[in-house]
Amino acid sequence: MENANGKPIHDEPYDIVIIGGGPGGLSAALYAARGRMKTLVLDKNPAAGALGSADRIANYPGIPEAISGAELLDRIRAQAESFGAELRQEQVYGVDFTARPFQVFTSGATVMSKTVILATGSMGRSVTLPGETEFTGRGVSYCATCDAAFYQDRDVAIAGATAEIMDELGALARFARRIYLITREKEIPPEHADFISTNPAIVVKTGGRITAIRGGEHVDEITVAAGGADEDLRVDGVFLYLHGNKPIVDYLYGAIETTEEGCIAVNRETMATSVEGVYAIGDVTCKKVRQVVLAAAEGCVAALSAEQHVSKRDRAVSQWSH
Amino acid sequence: MENANGKPIHDEPYDIVIIGGGPGGLSAALYAARGRMKTLVLDKNPAAGALGSADRIANYPGIPEAISGAELLDRIRAQAESFGAELRQEQVYGVDFTARPFQVFTSGATVMSKTVILATGSMGRSVTLPGETEFTGRGVSYCATCDAAFYQDRDVAIAGATAEIMDELGALARFARRIYLITREKEIPPEHADFISTNPAIVVKTGGRITAIRGGEHVDEITVAAGGADEDLRVDGVFLYLHGNKPIVDYLYGAIETTEEGCIAVNRETMATSVEGVYAIGDVTCKKVRQVVLAAAEGCVAALSAEQHVSKRDRAVSQWSH
Repeated sequence: MENANGKPIHDEPYDIVIIGGGPGGLSAALYAARGRMKTLVLDKNPAAGALGSADRIANYPGIPEAISGAELLDRIRAQAESFGAELRQEQVYGVDFTARPFQVFTSGATVMSKTVILATGSMGRSVTLPGETEFTGRGVSYCATCDAAFYQDRDVAIAGATAEIMDELGALARFARRIYLITREKEIPPEHADFISTNPAIVVKTGGRITAIRGGEHVDEITVAAGGADEDLRVDGVFLYLHGNKPIVDYLYGAIETTEEGCIAVNRETMATSVEGVYAIGDVTCKKVRQVVLAAAEGCVAALSAEQHVSKRDRAVSQWSH
Repeated sequence: MENANGKPIHDEPYDIVIIGGGPGGLSAALYAARGRMKTLVLDKNPAAGALGSADRIANYPGIPEAISGAELLDRIRAQAESFGAELRQEQVYGVDFTARPFQVFTSGATVMSKTVILATGSMGRSVTLPGETEFTGRGVSYCATCDAAFYQDRDVAIAGATAEIMDELGALARFARRIYLITREKEIPPEHADFISTNPAIVVKTGGRITAIRGGEHVDEITVAAGGADEDLRVDGVFLYLHGNKPIVDYLYGAIETTEEGCIAVNRETMATSVEGVYAIGDVTCKKVRQVVLAAAEGCVAALSAEQHVSKRDRAVSQWSH
């Protein structure tokens, strides 16, 4: 069977299709497959996500040895597959959530499913700083709460709007020897001035921006432009909070409601979205805490919600067909 | 410094005290300690919780090999300790959340803390044994560490899974003349057989369960059903360690609001309770899904919320003191 584009349609719908193969999506697959659901994960690129590019993870409960983000993903993927989940490296470019079963369009096929879990994460900015991509995971970080402990007695830079980064600055201040706070603002907002001025580790560069990140194996140096002059600063780490994280929802074309901030609002008890049978987890949802264990837990909850939805639906269908 | 009961008070309050050492409590400790918070976990018994007694865990994301619940707990505990969290095996018997800092009363001390995370899980059953409620506090106890000394040279019974009650059994063995160990297990696990067989005070009743508790002013007798036959045993005390789904909130004496079902309602974005600075996580909260990864994620969120609360409070205090 083929659809209008000549692409194959699989006759038997999946119970649960998960879009995105990060920690949330793979955990959802693990629980769904273990619950005997016919489960498929569509992942455009196993190395693309925020976790896949993380150099070292030390705070995931139950894994005391520091491992790479890619290795942690490999482990969850292996579990999901061992329970019978199917994984395909395919990019999703559209969905039809008015159809029943739901339809998910990939570069290779039209996939039918009784339920869908959205786990596409969020993306940094489209424009990056020179050196940023090269050193991501090797000195460039987007999460001080996650990575501050790696910079004990070392020098770091943090860039972003002051109000936005105060919590992150607090996390860094407990570890780093010197912190260059680089902000485009002309002056520090008065409500934050006290904390910053009483902390001798913090060196403020107002009216400044990072123009380059350099290093060898790891970040060694940045260039900061401030007041018409360039200055090179020796640092071991750079924490960037430039435009915030943008949830990846483009492939939905409005099929799911998003907030003004562009994230998907969910019921946090069930991870349900505005469409019955469609769930969302991880960084694509509206949330404050971005941690791997939280995405994994949301995957668990979404899978159990989807499982209940499938059982109810199957029971209803079987009643009608009698 | 001592309080009215002659117990030591530590002058410097903790930033975060966590009551309960299950997966939620230990994960909270991990994140709190990694964020450089002065962190203490109070755990009455590392083997007592729902996870500690789980034989095998296969669905925890990131740990593909099947491990025991106790081993998973050991790993998270090791992480929390490696980041500097302090762990104490002490039972909490009361709290004062009107005081600032908060006070937590244990068998050994009065502990002061800026924030508290409640992670005491669930255990007490909704269905009780005949006579259990009537004789609670008059021979029926749930804590040998607390009450064993009342049974010097007397006869007692203890019921529960062997692995879970070994510490309690040890406490009783220092006082009681005879201890009936009543377990539904067919045989004693080999790692515990040695202690039990070499202690002449312990009389094992495998494949058994208590069906009735009787007495006058105080417990006098129990009935044990084992191998199809009933047996009456003369005892002065009964120690019960039977699992269930009733949130453990007795030590709070109403300091935190609970629902009609007896669970603690929390804001799932922050894990905050009705008292600012006090958080609750895991099976003591009102929830549908009971999975280890979910408790771990809740521990993460609660720790980060508590950390923010401490920073804000410290910043406010520092402003006032200027």
